[in-house]
Amino acid sequence: VSGVRKAACIGGGVIGAGWAARLAWHGIDVTVCDPHPEAERRCRIVLANGEWAMARLYGAPVGEPGAVAFTTDIAEAVADADFVQESAPEDIPLKQAILAEIDRHAPAVALVCSSTSGLRPTVLQSVMDRPGRFMVGHPFNPVYLLPLVEVCGGEKTDAAAIDRAITFYRSLGMQPLHVRTEIDGFIADRLMEALWREALWLVNDGVATVAEIDDAVRYGPGLRWAMMGTFLTYRIAGGEDGMRHFMRQFGPALQWPWTKLTDVPDLTDDLIDRIATQSDEQADGVELRDLERQRDDGLVAIMQALKPLGIGAGAVLADQERARVGARAPVTPDLSVAAPLCLHTARVLPEWTDYNGHMTEHRYLQVFGDAADALFAAVGVDAAYLAGGHSYYTVESHLRHLGEAPADVPLHVETQLLDHDAKRIHAFHRLVRSDTDTLLATAEQLYLHVDTKEGRVCDAPEAVRDRLAAIAAAHGDLPLPDGAGRSVGLRRQVAAE
Amino acid sequence: VSGVRKAACIGGGVIGAGWAARLAWHGIDVTVCDPHPEAERRCRIVLANGEWAMARLYGAPVGEPGAVAFTTDIAEAVADADFVQESAPEDIPLKQAILAEIDRHAPAVALVCSSTSGLRPTVLQSVMDRPGRFMVGHPFNPVYLLPLVEVCGGEKTDAAAIDRAITFYRSLGMQPLHVRTEIDGFIADRLMEALWREALWLVNDGVATVAEIDDAVRYGPGLRWAMMGTFLTYRIAGGEDGMRHFMRQFGPALQWPWTKLTDVPDLTDDLIDRIATQSDEQADGVELRDLERQRDDGLVAIMQALKPLGIGAGAVLADQERARVGARAPVTPDLSVAAPLCLHTARVLPEWTDYNGHMTEHRYLQVFGDAADALFAAVGVDAAYLAGGHSYYTVESHLRHLGEAPADVPLHVETQLLDHDAKRIHAFHRLVRSDTDTLLATAEQLYLHVDTKEGRVCDAPEAVRDRLAAIAAAHGDLPLPDGAGRSVGLRRQVAAE
Repeated sequence: VSGVRKAACIGGGVIGAGWAARLAWHGIDVTVCDPHPEAERRCRIVLANGEWAMARLYGAPVGEPGAVAFTTDIAEAVADADFVQESAPEDIPLKQAILAEIDRHAPAVALVCSSTSGLRPTVLQSVMDRPGRFMVGHPFNPVYLLPLVEVCGGEKTDAAAIDRAITFYRSLGMQPLHVRTEIDGFIADRLMEALWREALWLVNDGVATVAEIDDAVRYGPGLRWAMMGTFLTYRIAGGEDGMRHFMRQFGPALQWPWTKLTDVPDLTDDLIDRIATQSDEQADGVELRDLERQRDDGLVAIMQALKPLGIGAGAVLADQERARVGARAPVTPDLSVAAPLCLHTARVLPEWTDYNGHMTEHRYLQVFGDAADALFAAVGVDAAYLAGGHSYYTVESHLRHLGEAPADVPLHVETQLLDHDAKRIHAFHRLVRSDTDTLLATAEQLYLHVDTKEGRVCDAPEAVRDRLAAIAAAHGDLPLPDGAGRSVGLRRQVAAE
Repeated sequence: VSGVRKAACIGGGVIGAGWAARLAWHGIDVTVCDPHPEAERRCRIVLANGEWAMARLYGAPVGEPGAVAFTTDIAEAVADADFVQESAPEDIPLKQAILAEIDRHAPAVALVCSSTSGLRPTVLQSVMDRPGRFMVGHPFNPVYLLPLVEVCGGEKTDAAAIDRAITFYRSLGMQPLHVRTEIDGFIADRLMEALWREALWLVNDGVATVAEIDDAVRYGPGLRWAMMGTFLTYRIAGGEDGMRHFMRQFGPALQWPWTKLTDVPDLTDDLIDRIATQSDEQADGVELRDLERQRDDGLVAIMQALKPLGIGAGAVLADQERARVGARAPVTPDLSVAAPLCLHTARVLPEWTDYNGHMTEHRYLQVFGDAADALFAAVGVDAAYLAGGHSYYTVESHLRHLGEAPADVPLHVETQLLDHDAKRIHAFHRLVRSDTDTLLATAEQLYLHVDTKEGRVCDAPEAVRDRLAAIAAAHGDLPLPDGAGRSVGLRRQVAAE
């Protein structure tokens, strides 16, 4: 798409190596140039990290990954490059010398971009013979994962070169942000630098430690910044009264000593108008309720995603879940009713759906698994029981998919006990869309009672078996559910067993 | 645990209502007091949002949710409360008047906390007769989801009251951060305010729009802030040279005009030492490589979580996936080999594992689904084909679970074609742990060829059937795999069909 087949990364530190990883993953051959004696070793660690992380993010690579070569000679690195990314230290004379060298040896059509976090492109390009092809392309660490790249041209940059760079970066899975006004620090680093300076004051003044400051971010505002930034968050916080109200309400705080950084703009009517108008454009007609819903969906999804990793807010969630499960009163449904048990309800979460907007195949099994857990809890196999080292494991499932479910629809599962003995439970679940009473899927499952420490099958205790017997007695006269006992195959076939 | 059975929320705006939602979810009866004529209607919207969001975050409530009542009378609201949370507008005389009223009527043992974003507790408690039980408990919107609450006592606050409040907030699933030094704006709001002031400058100076500023956060640094904050992120960015190196390298930037907020602390050796030491304590012996891995795991998990929601970096990922799938060269494996096809490999992601550290049941089906997609692609049912309105749907699956898989282990799937006709494919997959060659699970599945627009079964085209026939010819002499053709049941049973 972009026409770039070969790239050069000048500077192979954390940023340069991150670029090399992203480029190679996208099928582009890369030559990394760095004079540091440890450069190749360090770079290869980043390449390996990037390969593993991108495999998880993207799945399998599109095609063959690009090759990565190393050199200490800039001329050699850029000789046949279509694209050059400079990631040298933030030192103007050093960067200028490197860029002049790149400019002399790179093909005339090659784009040249700098990873600088904040130096002005006009200053950097001043030493180049072909400054029109130069601009800033400022990435964020880890470069192989974070999509943002700030693109900022200098006074001599060609507009066409900026378009080419934006197209190219987009082909690498990035989100280019065109910084239209040349300014030190561009946009993101100005914000980061402001927060950083305030954080330094807090440590300097002994108010908080670095760990406390990080916690103040990651358990609170950081979760919102991950998906909405700051203005949209405040628009929602303004509630029904909107952005203009929010600005006027919190305007006075600008004059209060809530940071050490007290050089603030005047909150004139003109500035309030501008922000309110731009905020309307940003919201693009999406109603407050939908924005709130989007915010909440995103926060839930982020915290749930961090839970199994035990990171930040995900760790809080996991801790509380453990505490709550321990405290949960035993479920005591009436097991003697001659009808399938309804022990589990759910709602189709937005993140369970695929690109067609329907619940993905494996999420059906997740809901059936939750229904099985509810059945186990009902016969006494609850959190305390599990903690004691025994459990039921699913060993066999037969699923039939009969209907589709879009996001948000309510579900319930009807569970019929088909058979059991000391070690085994044989159950049949029907997944029903509750609002339309439509059967969506069935699952016939076999569970084994196991000693989880020893990893072997063993008898369930008397109390559990008594409860199973009570359900079996109640379900004894129910007809065998439609679909039970089936094997998979084309019907004309004789079953193989 | 906390002994709180009844709470009063004084002020029922976005923050007060968010508190009510969190409290009620955790089984605590709440009385909301607000003089605004629309207060109850607005509050009930937040309560409904909170109920839905917490159901998704936590699953089913522990027990009966608390009741929520409304009043306009502070004395009535707090009369029998064990805990009072004040969330009135940021106006010192107004808050003082309200707190004095609360103080007069609340039981002597009740804790009284203020949601203020930055006013000093010493100032607020000065009007109270029992100031010892008062402190700031500053939450973050939406209060029912974000775990952070900053706890800050004033000069007259009892240490024991702070301990009680921290215990109570923790029982609500929150992450209390004790602000040990009383300071305007506490910790989080100082950081947020610094970022906000810089953002206002950027709009004021016409450098960027509010949407561009939000994008500069949510596609880049915001994703890191969601899980690591700022210091730990920079520690990792410092690479092998560590925090001290990072501080010295970026120290000069403090003197550069990278923000409008130029009142910066001197980066003395003492301050650098303090930060480096605190950063070591924060990392707590965790090695750089493990921190990098944690960061990358978290970023992948967050972006993956946002993908189906189409929010921020998740939308970038979804867009690129669509573009990449469209561009993918058709897979042309050799279909004529007389052995099961190996078309799909994967690795167990950390977020696929349960609390035992093993791959969760439904993730097996996810991997089999990916293997089925690879089989479809191999016979010509690729992204372009799907876009044309035809596909194969799974209608039936038989799964056997034979082994467990911890995070990170490599997997591959071996696929044998058992049967097919114009409309149907009958296949058998074996999921193998690649590093030990252990069979973990099998899946026997039936797929139907469908017209996805009409929603009905139809014949697959000649080209697809020819490829299936080629595989069938190659697989014709393979033995029927162990486990094929089985139905679920206790073996002593006669199969029901």
